[in-house]
Amino acid sequence: MAAFEPSDPGYAKRVRNSYARQQVMTFIGAELVDLQPGYCEIHLPYRPELSQQDGFFHAGIISTIADSAGGYASYTLMAADTRVLTVEYKMNLLAPARGERLIARGQVIKNGRTLVIAKADIGVIRNGEETLCATLLETLISLADNLSR
Amino acid sequence: MAAFEPSDPGYAKRVRNSYARQQVMTFIGAELVDLQPGYCEIHLPYRPELSQQDGFFHAGIISTIADSAGGYASYTLMAADTRVLTVEYKMNLLAPARGERLIARGQVIKNGRTLVIAKADIGVIRNGEETLCATLLETLISLADNLSR
Amino acid sequence: MAAFEPSDPGYAKRVRNSYARQQVMTFIGAELVDLQPGYCEIHLPYRPELSQQDGFFHAGIISTIADSAGGYASYTLMAADTRVLTVEYKMNLLAPARGERLIARGQVIKNGRTLVIAKADIGVIRNGEETLCATLLETLISLADNLSR
Amino acid sequence: MAAFEPSDPGYAKRVRNSYARQQVMTFIGAELVDLQPGYCEIHLPYRPELSQQDGFFHAGIISTIADSAGGYASYTLMAADTRVLTVEYKMNLLAPARGERLIARGQVIKNGRTLVIAKADIGVIRNGEETLCATLLETLISLADNLSR
Repeated sequence: MAAFEPSDPGYAKRVRNSYARQQVMTFIGAELVDLQPGYCEIHLPYRPELSQQDGFFHAGIISTIADSAGGYASYTLMAADTRVLTVEYKMNLLAPARGERLIARGQVIKNGRTLVIAKADIGVIRNGEETLCATLLETLISLADNLSR
Repeated sequence: MAAFEPSDPGYAKRVRNSYARQQVMTFIGAELVDLQPGYCEIHLPYRPELSQQDGFFHAGIISTIADSAGGYASYTLMAADTRVLTVEYKMNLLAPARGERLIARGQVIKNGRTLVIAKADIGVIRNGEETLCATLLETLISLADNLSR
Repeated sequence: MAAFEPSDPGYAKRVRNSYARQQVMTFIGAELVDLQPGYCEIHLPYRPELSQQDGFFHAGIISTIADSAGGYASYTLMAADTRVLTVEYKMNLLAPARGERLIARGQVIKNGRTLVIAKADIGVIRNGEETLCATLLETLISLADNLSR
Repeated sequence: MAAFEPSDPGYAKRVRNSYARQQVMTFIGAELVDLQPGYCEIHLPYRPELSQQDGFFHAGIISTIADSAGGYASYTLMAADTRVLTVEYKMNLLAPARGERLIARGQVIKNGRTLVIAKADIGVIRNGEETLCATLLETLISLADNLSR
């Protein structure tokens, strides 16, 4: 994966400010643990409140942190006066998300002028061992100063 | 959309039991409000805890109820002694999910022997008016008696 | 589905000119048979040269006409001085594409300022009867006067 | 990416036989150039007949070789008495597919009992230099002895 050069040297503060406004991250207990140009890593400890019918992490919860990981990986590369919105994503579930912690690693694949394409791989830690449990591919858009598309 | 004939006459109880075990539904405040063969509707009132950085419903939360709506629409048609797991889904965001309530309507498109293909349209109610804000297309698998794929 | 008002009254000629430049359509034998604001229908007669290993239409060929159907449905609504490019698509195969003709019906779901979201349903005609064999969901972008994104 | 152990030692012959029956590969001029357990690479020289309105490879043609690359990567790992069918795929276009040759590299991500998840990265060669122009994520199913799903 190519290294990316952020156009905004203050990207880390800008991303963390936006992340802090995502109240759902606090609500589910997610934590932004690493941020690099084109990369973002979010962790989520298991809680029964996040589970589907078998007690595993619900697919929607997996995609909640995966979408944010891919979105903030993308937002590190966007200009200072922009906002980021998700256009779409697709996620494949690869193994039951059974374990004590999820790790979503978002990575920019293509940094376009208007659109950014990112992926996120999601691992689940069980008894200290990580298994790849999902992979997500998404499109994000950089918007100037309003919310419509 | 063709009408579907459930193979299990006790489908409604079976689906509602599974739904009740999805602790994440209670956690976010979602409610299963309609269930028909091949159809499932889930509502979710707005709470700031479910928001992304602009105060709208987070995409991951949208997909949480959309995935469950599509999954339980599918599960109505599965055999009595099966479980359902999501294989993958893809969601497009069509408008900002800004409003007081989300409505996810899951609908089976194709009821195959092993795989079921479903879609979910998600509307957001704002000031009493509904806008289509997302659409999801997904694949589910019917499993006999274990969790591996 | 809402009716759409094209901003360019000359949309039909513009779309048909672009379609005529898609040499792959002639190569595989596809035909644009209907065009309305937000709608495009493309037919493709079967030829063994379009088949996968079982003699059915290859998934890639299905998506070739489905992508163009969704793309030109979208392009009917774009401004006169724009071009259209596909951002991404996702297609589910619902039944074997076995038959004498494919019909792809592209339909705009959301006509945004920069992005258009469209779907295409693909039917296969066998012995005169049509079966839904695939469904595609895609994102398109309207570009002003150059090719980069 | 983990190394995969094929269950069928005769996988290469089985895959190449199936590939040879995909008449569309011959029709468009694609060539299977590398096959390893869990990996398949297909090349496609440019011809104007494969182009969209700007003269680039049409997205559907890109996905035709990408789907086959992912599908045959998957089929290398399936049992001897099975067939493979594509369930669904999603492809993002990353750059205009302008050049003299496409290279699709299919790679298994998860080899499940019934379903296999694969990806394919597609590069375009222009003036001898390769650019990543698309990425595809797909689900395949292993079927025993009939064609229905």
